[in-house]
Amino acid sequence: QIASAAAALFESGLLAGKRVVITAGPTREALDPVRYISNHSSGKMGYALAAAAVAAGARTTLISGPVTLPVPDHVAFHPVESARDMLAACLDQVAECDIFIACAAVADYRPAQVQGQKIKKGAEEISLPLVRNPDIVATIAAVEKPPFTVGFAAETQDVLAYARDKMQRKHLDMIVANDVSEQGIGFNSEENAVTILHESGQRTLARATKFNIAREILEEIARVYREN
Amino acid sequence: QIASAAAALFESGLLAGKRVVITAGPTREALDPVRYISNHSSGKMGYALAAAAVAAGARTTLISGPVTLPVPDHVAFHPVESARDMLAACLDQVAECDIFIACAAVADYRPAQVQGQKIKKGAEEISLPLVRNPDIVATIAAVEKPPFTVGFAAETQDVLAYARDKMQRKHLDMIVANDVSEQGIGFNSEENAVTILHESGQRTLARATKFNIAREILEEIARVYREN
Repeated sequence: QIASAAAALFESGLLAGKRVVITAGPTREALDPVRYISNHSSGKMGYALAAAAVAAGARTTLISGPVTLPVPDHVAFHPVESARDMLAACLDQVAECDIFIACAAVADYRPAQVQGQKIKKGAEEISLPLVRNPDIVATIAAVEKPPFTVGFAAETQDVLAYARDKMQRKHLDMIVANDVSEQGIGFNSEENAVTILHESGQRTLARATKFNIAREILEEIARVYREN
Repeated sequence: QIASAAAALFESGLLAGKRVVITAGPTREALDPVRYISNHSSGKMGYALAAAAVAAGARTTLISGPVTLPVPDHVAFHPVESARDMLAACLDQVAECDIFIACAAVADYRPAQVQGQKIKKGAEEISLPLVRNPDIVATIAAVEKPPFTVGFAAETQDVLAYARDKMQRKHLDMIVANDVSEQGIGFNSEENAVTILHESGQRTLARATKFNIAREILEEIARVYREN
């Protein structure tokens, strides 16, 4: 009954006509034609958010790093590889975006140089020069007319304190914090448990499937977005 | 007719009773709880070799890095993450192994330290210290009573010269060379085209599905193995 009530709420078109852009998955930062740096993001949370946004009536765009998930129906899909690719795709969409949800696990650093040929083994110890990647969610939040911008903070310690600091520092409207050191939630899990933080409050969502968490996040986004 | 002839050859039990150990896929080398270095190996060639080895009557063990492929039937399966995990699994099997096929794309280097917590962003430019991983195929070829040891050389330039040098340097019985810079073959493709090198000759296999390439590689292995 609770599930059908939630479904009815969604079918009422909580985000009808709103343009929602969601990033998902990891990015891959090439070292050479075969090697890369990446992370364990499965994309499941971002894809669940995209499916839930469609269910809520939003015109939904999904900008995704390499994952193995099926693309949800009725989603405009933009596959990307690197953080710079992802930023370019987001900037292409930002003028046509009411709500931007940065769920991707973007690599903070990339190799300073991409070698054109496969790097040969050499010394026992080497040092790989890395440079900072662009900060996608901060860049979007800083455009002239920013969308309602939602970040994610996947942390292994001091989760809420770090998430609130990140929200304020990057001028986000909302941030979703989760503790990826907990077993059975977060990266590559079917379930998640998160705390949603915004300027005037916070809400903790107990462990549930990522699709149910996604629906609750979108409800909270819709509520705060309307109050803004 | 050619396909059914090949199937008949296989059904005759080309490797009946032989114990074949195959490594497949990439390895992942952790930087911290969420980040890693890896490569684009899909595992398809190694999994095709495992399926073909089963078809040829071999008792087949597959030691695989993280991929998204189904495990072939009748294969003893050992999933691993890092190069060191993979080496340990191979050493566990080597005493019970007649033919060892190192098809995995093992990371040459791993981060010198694995951080227990997610590394925070910091300076614009950083340097990541890396150390050499163990050389799995060379280690197996150097045990006291080595199995018939087959390596792979996925290269982007000077493919055959590099492959022959690698075979001799690591004391392998055979090496399978492919040019991963060619479109449509090699890493993450459905097809492959390879050259098989051994002490007394070489054989080039024209582009075909990975399963057909796998069957031809196993035929060549069986032929040279018997002559040894």
